[in-house]
Amino acid sequence: MVEHSTLVAIGVDLGGTMIKGGLVTQDGRVLARASIATEAEGGVDHVIDRMVGLIKRFRREADSRSLTVEAVGLGAPGTLDRRRGIVVAPPNLQGWLNVPIVERIASALGLARERVLLDNDANNAALGEYLCGAGRGVGDMVMLTLGTGIGGGIILGGKPWHGAGDNAGELGHMIVHAGGRRCQCGQQGCLEAYASAGSTAARARERIAAGEPSSLKEILDRGGQIGADDVVEAVSAGDVLAMQVWEETCRYLAVGCINIQHALSPGRIVLAGGMSGAGEWLVRPVVEAMAALSSRMLGDPPEIRVAELGNDAGLIGSALSVFQ
Amino acid sequence: MVEHSTLVAIGVDLGGTMIKGGLVTQDGRVLARASIATEAEGGVDHVIDRMVGLIKRFRREADSRSLTVEAVGLGAPGTLDRRRGIVVAPPNLQGWLNVPIVERIASALGLARERVLLDNDANNAALGEYLCGAGRGVGDMVMLTLGTGIGGGIILGGKPWHGAGDNAGELGHMIVHAGGRRCQCGQQGCLEAYASAGSTAARARERIAAGEPSSLKEILDRGGQIGADDVVEAVSAGDVLAMQVWEETCRYLAVGCINIQHALSPGRIVLAGGMSGAGEWLVRPVVEAMAALSSRMLGDPPEIRVAELGNDAGLIGSALSVFQ
Repeated sequence: MVEHSTLVAIGVDLGGTMIKGGLVTQDGRVLARASIATEAEGGVDHVIDRMVGLIKRFRREADSRSLTVEAVGLGAPGTLDRRRGIVVAPPNLQGWLNVPIVERIASALGLARERVLLDNDANNAALGEYLCGAGRGVGDMVMLTLGTGIGGGIILGGKPWHGAGDNAGELGHMIVHAGGRRCQCGQQGCLEAYASAGSTAARARERIAAGEPSSLKEILDRGGQIGADDVVEAVSAGDVLAMQVWEETCRYLAVGCINIQHALSPGRIVLAGGMSGAGEWLVRPVVEAMAALSSRMLGDPPEIRVAELGNDAGLIGSALSVFQ
Repeated sequence: MVEHSTLVAIGVDLGGTMIKGGLVTQDGRVLARASIATEAEGGVDHVIDRMVGLIKRFRREADSRSLTVEAVGLGAPGTLDRRRGIVVAPPNLQGWLNVPIVERIASALGLARERVLLDNDANNAALGEYLCGAGRGVGDMVMLTLGTGIGGGIILGGKPWHGAGDNAGELGHMIVHAGGRRCQCGQQGCLEAYASAGSTAARARERIAAGEPSSLKEILDRGGQIGADDVVEAVSAGDVLAMQVWEETCRYLAVGCINIQHALSPGRIVLAGGMSGAGEWLVRPVVEAMAALSSRMLGDPPEIRVAELGNDAGLIGSALSVFQ
């Protein structure tokens, strides 16, 4: 039973495929959650209508419980102009260019502009884990979200670090092998080009295409796609190619964590995103590679943990960002 | 003429070779400065006596001007336990192990312990440049000190960022070429292993030793040592080997700056230390390599500038750290 006086916020996490939302208490309990298709192909107005509909649903939910909604927190893919509340040019939302999302949503809801807050989805997810998940109890935390690419969120002194122009935290694009593999961003040798789920799958595919033997070939033979989860499964079954690919993924991830350690020295690094489902199959080799590759002279390594909130991290963090 | 009411502080920058000190006003004017040999071979007590003597000299100077000394700020090489005021294990001060420098100096001066502050020398130098030099006017700044190694200082929101265990800012040991050149710290592929003055000179030497032609060989032939400044001089004279070595130095430095950009997005990166004397011969190729190697999708690059305060940065920053 929630107290009537409990402050709540509505968090909405806008993704290219799904819009996730929730009604969240100030201490991070999710009272209600929902996930709807983005339907990005319907255009900007359509997507905003869907977001507004979702928020209204949570507002009714709050009303029915006699709870006061403090504000609405939005998480959106970058690039953003956070202060002006504008989604500038997200690569996975085609047709979105300089959309004043805060103004549009505030006016559709009849809310004052300052009661709708916008931040980067990766920052909000990191804030969610920091406040309610794998980041609890440390002063500072860095999160790497391991998916098709690698997203980053930096929490310093309890708050997301935005930097000049809101472009901080692009940790997947730290260059860890100058002149190396081409990254989707155009750079060469990015962490993302070696240690993302996307790269893990791609490197396995490339080696199989080059004729190396692997149990993973069966997936291709029956017309399927190799994913990072298939690679991890093949590792646990002792497939040599998969083990080599995964070792490389974990080794580069260790290099990324070493760089984060030397730059910022956070108490903890949290690994999130689809690939973090590998759990100890991910954490243990990363920690071991960090020990093998980093210098003890330069201090103790941060703790490495996998994220705890899964898909809720973004909506919880988006909601709690309004209380910051 | 300084006002009688002006607040001043004494800054002392302890190095392996020299101790630099100054009497500095709250707004960063150096009223008096001095530089004495560290005489580290004389042992811990001897060095502390020399520091105390220097501080007393500045205290007399302040007295003679009827100025009130707010506190004493010390900058020392890491590793440190900053909160407890202890120099833990600096690689360039042999025999120093867990020296409670703050307590020792405070008691020798008859000062309360909280009127002597300790921070990392690289952080203090960065703070000096931020407040009074090449970092003025930006919100956040990162400084890379290019000497035998590469030191780093991170100023976020106007203050040095220390991280957990005070080990943040070791930017020279970000790995930019996994599996690459061995660094003095024991890691492979550190920024320092490619872009320091020490590495620049070493790479030139290695190539000449391998038989490549260069005007720099004359220096070796007459029994001299090649320094990074010799490489820069040979670049300006059109020496091909020197140009290739310097291009590599600047390219890796650009990679380091790209990584700092993506992680922290500071408004400005300041290049300091001996090698920054190259001025535009350094800044221009670094900026050009950043433009060539970084992705525009990820935001605008920070400004790159060379440091302005030279040897004064450390003592000014050490002094001004007491007003933070």
